[in-house]
Amino acid sequence: MKIALAQQNYHIGNFEHNTRRIIEGIEAAKARGADLVVFSELSVCGYPPRDFLEFEDFIRRCDQAIDEIRKHTGTIGVLVGCPVRNPAREGKDLFNAAWLLYEGEVKAIRHKTLLPTYDIFDENRYFEPSFEWNIVPFKGHRLAVTVCEDIWNLGDNPLYRQCPMDRLITQSPDCMINLSASPFDYAHAEERGAIVRANVDKYGLPMFYCNAVGSQTEIVFDGGSMIMDASGRIVRALPFFEEGMIVAELDAQGRVASHEEAVSAGTAHTTRTTAAPAAAGATAAAPGGPVQEAAPRAPRPAAAVHTAPRAVTAASGEFSRTDIEVLQPELNIDRIYEALVLGIRDYFQKMGFTKAIIASSGGIDSALTLALACDALGAPHVRAVLMPSPYSSEHSVADAVTLSETLGNPYDIVPIREVYEAFLHTLQPLFGDLPFSLAEENIQSRSRGNIVMSIANKFGYIMLNTSNKSELATGYGTLYGDMAGGLGVLGDLYKLQVYALSRFINRDREVIPRNILDKAPSAELRPGQKDSDSLPEYAVLDPLLYQYIERRQGPAELARQGFDAALVARVLKMVNTNEYKRNQFCPIIRVSPKAFGIGRRVPIVAKYLG
Amino acid sequence: MKIALAQQNYHIGNFEHNTRRIIEGIEAAKARGADLVVFSELSVCGYPPRDFLEFEDFIRRCDQAIDEIRKHTGTIGVLVGCPVRNPAREGKDLFNAAWLLYEGEVKAIRHKTLLPTYDIFDENRYFEPSFEWNIVPFKGHRLAVTVCEDIWNLGDNPLYRQCPMDRLITQSPDCMINLSASPFDYAHAEERGAIVRANVDKYGLPMFYCNAVGSQTEIVFDGGSMIMDASGRIVRALPFFEEGMIVAELDAQGRVASHEEAVSAGTAHTTRTTAAPAAAGATAAAPGGPVQEAAPRAPRPAAAVHTAPRAVTAASGEFSRTDIEVLQPELNIDRIYEALVLGIRDYFQKMGFTKAIIASSGGIDSALTLALACDALGAPHVRAVLMPSPYSSEHSVADAVTLSETLGNPYDIVPIREVYEAFLHTLQPLFGDLPFSLAEENIQSRSRGNIVMSIANKFGYIMLNTSNKSELATGYGTLYGDMAGGLGVLGDLYKLQVYALSRFINRDREVIPRNILDKAPSAELRPGQKDSDSLPEYAVLDPLLYQYIERRQGPAELARQGFDAALVARVLKMVNTNEYKRNQFCPIIRVSPKAFGIGRRVPIVAKYLG
Repeated sequence: MKIALAQQNYHIGNFEHNTRRIIEGIEAAKARGADLVVFSELSVCGYPPRDFLEFEDFIRRCDQAIDEIRKHTGTIGVLVGCPVRNPAREGKDLFNAAWLLYEGEVKAIRHKTLLPTYDIFDENRYFEPSFEWNIVPFKGHRLAVTVCEDIWNLGDNPLYRQCPMDRLITQSPDCMINLSASPFDYAHAEERGAIVRANVDKYGLPMFYCNAVGSQTEIVFDGGSMIMDASGRIVRALPFFEEGMIVAELDAQGRVASHEEAVSAGTAHTTRTTAAPAAAGATAAAPGGPVQEAAPRAPRPAAAVHTAPRAVTAASGEFSRTDIEVLQPELNIDRIYEALVLGIRDYFQKMGFTKAIIASSGGIDSALTLALACDALGAPHVRAVLMPSPYSSEHSVADAVTLSETLGNPYDIVPIREVYEAFLHTLQPLFGDLPFSLAEENIQSRSRGNIVMSIANKFGYIMLNTSNKSELATGYGTLYGDMAGGLGVLGDLYKLQVYALSRFINRDREVIPRNILDKAPSAELRPGQKDSDSLPEYAVLDPLLYQYIERRQGPAELARQGFDAALVARVLKMVNTNEYKRNQFCPIIRVSPKAFGIGRRVPIVAKYLG
Repeated sequence: MKIALAQQNYHIGNFEHNTRRIIEGIEAAKARGADLVVFSELSVCGYPPRDFLEFEDFIRRCDQAIDEIRKHTGTIGVLVGCPVRNPAREGKDLFNAAWLLYEGEVKAIRHKTLLPTYDIFDENRYFEPSFEWNIVPFKGHRLAVTVCEDIWNLGDNPLYRQCPMDRLITQSPDCMINLSASPFDYAHAEERGAIVRANVDKYGLPMFYCNAVGSQTEIVFDGGSMIMDASGRIVRALPFFEEGMIVAELDAQGRVASHEEAVSAGTAHTTRTTAAPAAAGATAAAPGGPVQEAAPRAPRPAAAVHTAPRAVTAASGEFSRTDIEVLQPELNIDRIYEALVLGIRDYFQKMGFTKAIIASSGGIDSALTLALACDALGAPHVRAVLMPSPYSSEHSVADAVTLSETLGNPYDIVPIREVYEAFLHTLQPLFGDLPFSLAEENIQSRSRGNIVMSIANKFGYIMLNTSNKSELATGYGTLYGDMAGGLGVLGDLYKLQVYALSRFINRDREVIPRNILDKAPSAELRPGQKDSDSLPEYAVLDPLLYQYIERRQGPAELARQGFDAALVARVLKMVNTNEYKRNQFCPIIRVSPKAFGIGRRVPIVAKYLG
């Protein structure tokens, strides 16, 4: 029996698009002679649908999509992910399920058992866990079908009491098939490969692992679907961050063979550094076209620093995910690049936007954001606005001009002096002779925010935000000013990672001017201002923030790690008392195991370490 | 045995404050001769602590607080709510628990079984459910101790498979004690009373029900703790929205007696309509003073419209909570008033702020917000800023001036013309001769946002936002303009409820000028503009929004209800495509069963009904 894996990019709630893509995948798999084609978790409605699942209308549309898809099955079996109603009176209304469609009918439905409810995941909010486990018989084979998290407990994941494969193995399946929606973070792909292998090792069965690809607001799904034989050899693998299809033969003895040479996950990985707008379309939708076999790829460039291979102990539990002991700014920086480019591109494409606008200050954050946006959307679709204030240095405008001229994107210079002075004059009756303060700094920042938003409103741009994670953590930013924008591109990168990614951008040629990389960071909102006037040096701050945010270390642990106690108290207080600002921030493309936003949920009105 | 209930206002993560309040409660209960004093759910750390629960340091501080509190027990038993570690390897790291402290020791710990994970609740994210059930023996009595949601399944709540009291009743307890953190919404107090009575009826035992009071960012806990005897009579009850303590005797036969006359829940309710700043302090902290017995109260004024009593079927499951079939703008409007006043007051007090600033437009939303803020913080602490634009009508400024002179709060008039014209002049090279559009409207709105924030930054005010739920639903507002602010006061009130609450404010005298109530709503951002140019009339829009948001009805159901299909499509599209704006909105004080913000979580990048 030939089994195909279709790695596709879905659009949440866009049943028309998703159904079309799935049917195209079915046709492509038929053309490849497949007997069964596998799609990813909740492929029918997109993942995560969140509270749309509470709408009866939404579930009806899921049913209608299934009805449409099953008409296209015929002699090929189709495994798709779709919610299904819980017929029992007790428990949540839905299961997160894998549906086997065949011969125009629904042949089997299997429910997800392990429902991740941590970090960005909320599955217990919507779904009832499975309480029964049965293999799926199909064309003489016995398939152990599971959904995503189900394979992440091998009996030693402390988050869960069930181990679905332990149940299924008692029914003598001859292969494992997993439908996933497993998101990217800079550490997760290795963990994913390790967990697939650990399942193969434990159960002695081949694994057909199908992941989603594409970005859903904050969450980037990175693909990397694979077929591993029972010996642990990767028979076929799909690239990261792209759509594709792979096929392999499962023989009567449960052995897997491929017509092509076996590939390792490493060589299947690809890096696409120059993405034209046309490529953007191909990634997200490729309307009308069949799903393409992944072409042979160039080897992935080695990242500057790699963690030592880590044992997958608690698997997907986030407590195990954050066990990289110290911040490593270069870690998988090439993949972070790909995730951010895909995150920007999919945000625009799925929202129906084409053009981005960015406040370009001459600093490194806006320079990097601009470079990423140009790669994602094409330089002609990215407009830079340079807005010098009375406190801007000469080189700021010059550096920003050089950057845009190198990138080839349009830019305008719009000085804010007149607006700033109008605010000061208007407020003079109230402010009187009070000294220059944070208020005047914020007026400049908000004047810029207003100018960019005005141009965006007038001409149909979406403003990209350039704040980094270090700034967001410490509250070093102005609400409605430099914190404005529709999508936070760098909000999950500490400043040291911003530098690392900028160096990656510059690895072949000087895209970001050297001067921007070299100069001391400054908001330039008062004469001679430097970030270091208000914040510790990033070389100290970022590792401390990482320990507090990603690794959840408290003051006692941080002191034991050698951080100065007074600095710890000061920094943790900054983080906690600025939650109100982050609460109003735009969505952030997530690249770390603990991003601000939907993955980190702390109270605003609270007094803890603050 | 005398049992006391201490209804107190906690501060999340403020262990010093919470511990002091609990110890004060213990001393007050001792002074009243109590043998046992009960505090509310997670009283030690405040509810909801959210991801702070993932910090080992936070749990250590919980332990330290327990160590401090138990030293103050002596001859009185103390039931407090506090997380406890799960010693098992499997499952979430914590239980949500009730701790019995007595004679300086921890005598018993009981775990919560039913973990709400819907709407604003995320308990499965943090807690493992209880899998064993035992009564707590204490001073010859057998106490069935449960935590909040545990009493909300009487065997017929479809959300749950367990019924903790069914387990406990087999051990022959002689009373039920429940530690709750049960939030306010305009329908919930009745449901709460009904569920307590339903438990009493089913198990034939008296119930000591202790709820928290006070606001935690969005969530208002309204108190209303009560002691009900086995016949269903309310022996003692505490008021809503205030701290207090009640005591009753549980005799050897499990009967409850009170030294005072039994009171009905209705007469125990109070309405405080003129809250001086001093009263604010009393509600939230009353530092140093013992907990006061609730004084006899005036009867609560009848609300204009009440729902018929509803059967409590599925109890706390939100699917049952939203069964008020149509929007009733006057429903419990007096309690909504109290919730909003407490919500503002606690936000300021717990954040350490004292002064509010509000953009006062002469419209009804800002007028109502201003009136509520003056009641919450005292008029001298609330500053209004009137910011006429070239398109403001004459009466707008006059009405806003009249309002502030009636309320007695300070105000300034700061015209935006100069700032607006500076923006237009600055943008002229880009905008050229393009016609006036939404961009120019938004510039006005954001100029105002910037001016208010500048004054706030300069003088230490917190900006209160005045957007209502109808505007937020439809996206009828400007990001960083009228959508700016630290706390959304009216964000959970539809426009019709804004009118109802304004009439309530004016029930004794004309606080909000008649003209503001009578004139057609307008943003006044272009000549002659009316809300009805862009939106359906509120009398049509609000009931439709209610059906979609609170009752999750889809297009087919709405058509069956008689709404015009084209209007439905238009409105639902407005709601869904504006999620990106709401995502950047400030926290909203929650008064309905389905508030925007943490209670309603939908994807931004999605294409569903949009």
